[in-house]
Amino acid sequence: MNYDQIFEAAIDRLHAEGRYRVFIDILRNKGAYPNARCFHGHNGPKPITVWCSNDYLAMGQHPKVISAMEEALHNVGAGSGGTRNIGGNTHYHIELEQELAGLHGKDSALLFTSGYVSNDATLSTLARILPGCIIFSDELNHASMIAGIRNSGCEKRVFRHNDVEHLEELLAAEDPNVPKLIAFESVYSMDGDVAPIHAICDLADKYNALTYLDEVHAVGMYGAHGGGISERDEAASRLTIIEGTLGKAFGVMGGYIAADQKIIDVIRSYAPGFIFTTSLSPVLVAGALASVRHLKQSSEEREGQQAAAATLKRLFSEAGLPVMDTTTHIVPLMVGDPVKAKRISDMLLAEYGVYVQPINFPTVPRGTERLRFTPGPSHDEAMMRDLTTALVEIWDRLELRKAA
Amino acid sequence: MNYDQIFEAAIDRLHAEGRYRVFIDILRNKGAYPNARCFHGHNGPKPITVWCSNDYLAMGQHPKVISAMEEALHNVGAGSGGTRNIGGNTHYHIELEQELAGLHGKDSALLFTSGYVSNDATLSTLARILPGCIIFSDELNHASMIAGIRNSGCEKRVFRHNDVEHLEELLAAEDPNVPKLIAFESVYSMDGDVAPIHAICDLADKYNALTYLDEVHAVGMYGAHGGGISERDEAASRLTIIEGTLGKAFGVMGGYIAADQKIIDVIRSYAPGFIFTTSLSPVLVAGALASVRHLKQSSEEREGQQAAAATLKRLFSEAGLPVMDTTTHIVPLMVGDPVKAKRISDMLLAEYGVYVQPINFPTVPRGTERLRFTPGPSHDEAMMRDLTTALVEIWDRLELRKAA
Ligand SMILES: Cc1ncc(COP(=O)(O)O)c(C=O)c1O
Ligand SMILES: Cc1ncc(COP(=O)(O)O)c(C=O)c1O
Repeated sequence: MNYDQIFEAAIDRLHAEGRYRVFIDILRNKGAYPNARCFHGHNGPKPITVWCSNDYLAMGQHPKVISAMEEALHNVGAGSGGTRNIGGNTHYHIELEQELAGLHGKDSALLFTSGYVSNDATLSTLARILPGCIIFSDELNHASMIAGIRNSGCEKRVFRHNDVEHLEELLAAEDPNVPKLIAFESVYSMDGDVAPIHAICDLADKYNALTYLDEVHAVGMYGAHGGGISERDEAASRLTIIEGTLGKAFGVMGGYIAADQKIIDVIRSYAPGFIFTTSLSPVLVAGALASVRHLKQSSEEREGQQAAAATLKRLFSEAGLPVMDTTTHIVPLMVGDPVKAKRISDMLLAEYGVYVQPINFPTVPRGTERLRFTPGPSHDEAMMRDLTTALVEIWDRLELRKAA
Repeated sequence: MNYDQIFEAAIDRLHAEGRYRVFIDILRNKGAYPNARCFHGHNGPKPITVWCSNDYLAMGQHPKVISAMEEALHNVGAGSGGTRNIGGNTHYHIELEQELAGLHGKDSALLFTSGYVSNDATLSTLARILPGCIIFSDELNHASMIAGIRNSGCEKRVFRHNDVEHLEELLAAEDPNVPKLIAFESVYSMDGDVAPIHAICDLADKYNALTYLDEVHAVGMYGAHGGGISERDEAASRLTIIEGTLGKAFGVMGGYIAADQKIIDVIRSYAPGFIFTTSLSPVLVAGALASVRHLKQSSEEREGQQAAAATLKRLFSEAGLPVMDTTTHIVPLMVGDPVKAKRISDMLLAEYGVYVQPINFPTVPRGTERLRFTPGPSHDEAMMRDLTTALVEIWDRLELRKAA
């Protein structure tokens, strides 16, 4: 038994496949997003432009968010000092849960330390509470949902991505008296496509299934108040549980679910991933509260972001770059090879001061490696033209395939 | 299939057992710990004294921590905006990982969003990387380690609490060529006792097992630099992986592991709970960095806390209260009944302005329900005398058993 050899072999496999990950060492510059400082390596230290942040609306630097966090820091201190049950239940947590319940038109909401944990803890607990439960899971569901489903130990049926016919086939094949849960996302973050929420809810009604919708990439971004695709499509009331993050469009950190009071009480009472952990820092909660409230009544950020995404898609497309067809704010360029994707990203950073991370397996299926751009309201058209020019140069230098 | 009935029944079970949890709605007052505001209910709103915080050293209000967080907030903004791999790797993260590696005398360290996630993600990933791995787990291990072990799907052997003879029996019974990992805690937080680290490492050497030590309740608290019991007992170099939290003695939020570079690289590269989640907010990381650095060179807080714990144990013991025998900073009073534990806690809060949470199943085994006090450097002797008087009154009113 040589442990070291096993660990080494695990790392060697990644190098061999060209998907060993190197983290880029940066600090974003508040007040000057998307500008950041890049530390050593990559011809640095030097200033760079970040094109792959999930702080989609730049709320992480919004004055209301910053001042709410500063106030909480001085009012109550750095951390909560306990689990939600033991000393870590602050008034900020309660207020934010009420705000999020309201955002999604639900009775109640529950905070978690991250969106990952909210998916893992909720799905694994729900399926354990419902005896014999079968979970129907979209094949492109996020790793955190897959973890929750696996950790529940329940039966799982995987339906083809956004394919309601396939979902219906799978539902119809099961005993009508067995508990069922359909788990899916609204915006799929690596492809930028959107689920047919109403059609899935129709099936849930027909087959008496619960529904669980991950709106992580949509909350703050869609709907008149930032309630996500379920708000935009007027489907929120049809969904059993809506899950979201505070770490992407809301610009801070943390996760949550919204649902009726009974379900929230069950998860609150039974989920180890909720119970046995220090609660979110009140500083984060205060910031998220300000962010959610702001985006409830302001659509300026959403509109700016959508405009930027549309412009970038147009520029890429006009330049013959293989931009993937998306209906959302996400702008992926298909590369189809992990080594090339990393090569392009390295050249962009070292030579052009552009930071965009290559997206490789296991984040996307092998053979669909890509670059994923998330322009925000503070990327201007000049930046986008420079980026397009840089990409075209690199595409030529590496003799990569252009769009048809 | 009536889902509502199942959810209701799950909640009814908790009420029937007297362990339905009611979260106390508070805000701690920075600059005046252990004072806090209690919101509605419990004869409130009113000021209260918190006796159950895990911000053991009051670092959550330390001026260095507060100003580091304020600076980061204004320098880089609220959140990291991405996963560690995609835009969320800030220079603060790298600095803190170096600092934590140094604290435990290891090559490398890795941050997670919480201590819970660090245990769950590391244990489940390690055991999946090591084919056929068997995990040997102390019977009182924390829920997050139990989750990680279960989620790994590997074989598990549970040894009696702190019982090295039993552990050896179990180790000796297995094939010497199978990978083995011993998972345990240094300070067990609900009993306040300490693991025999050297004796366990002796067995690990003898049976070629890896060791995983959760120092969540010990980091910052023990050892000349706050490196935990493994520093105090000069055992750090014998342990394969040391795990800790940034949310208790360090006063902020987040978790980590420290180990040699190869193991850190494996977990970094393979653990879904590390990879697929927004990284810790740089504001938290900056605060934790200041806290860890401060406690590396200052023992004043540790000494103040130990003195407070010793005083409170003495006062409880002199008053005939059933204080459990502990060698650490944790001061539990045994009650042995969930309804009574909650009753005492409710009376303390409503009538005496004292907040201490009852600790019920599943946090402790049924029949060992207790109150758990964590006096800190800012609880003075007058507060402790008032608390003791209040408890003696309640013990008399409820006709509870005193210590023998
Ligand atoms: C679809 C989806 N769900 C959940 C998560 C996890 O959310 P968080 O980053 O808050 O942990 C992510 C990304 O991180 C995601 O892309
Ligand atoms: C022994 C132990 N390990 C891990 C954790 C989890 O740490 P965190 O609160 O940072 O999630 C806790 C408590 O919360 C704990 O008591």
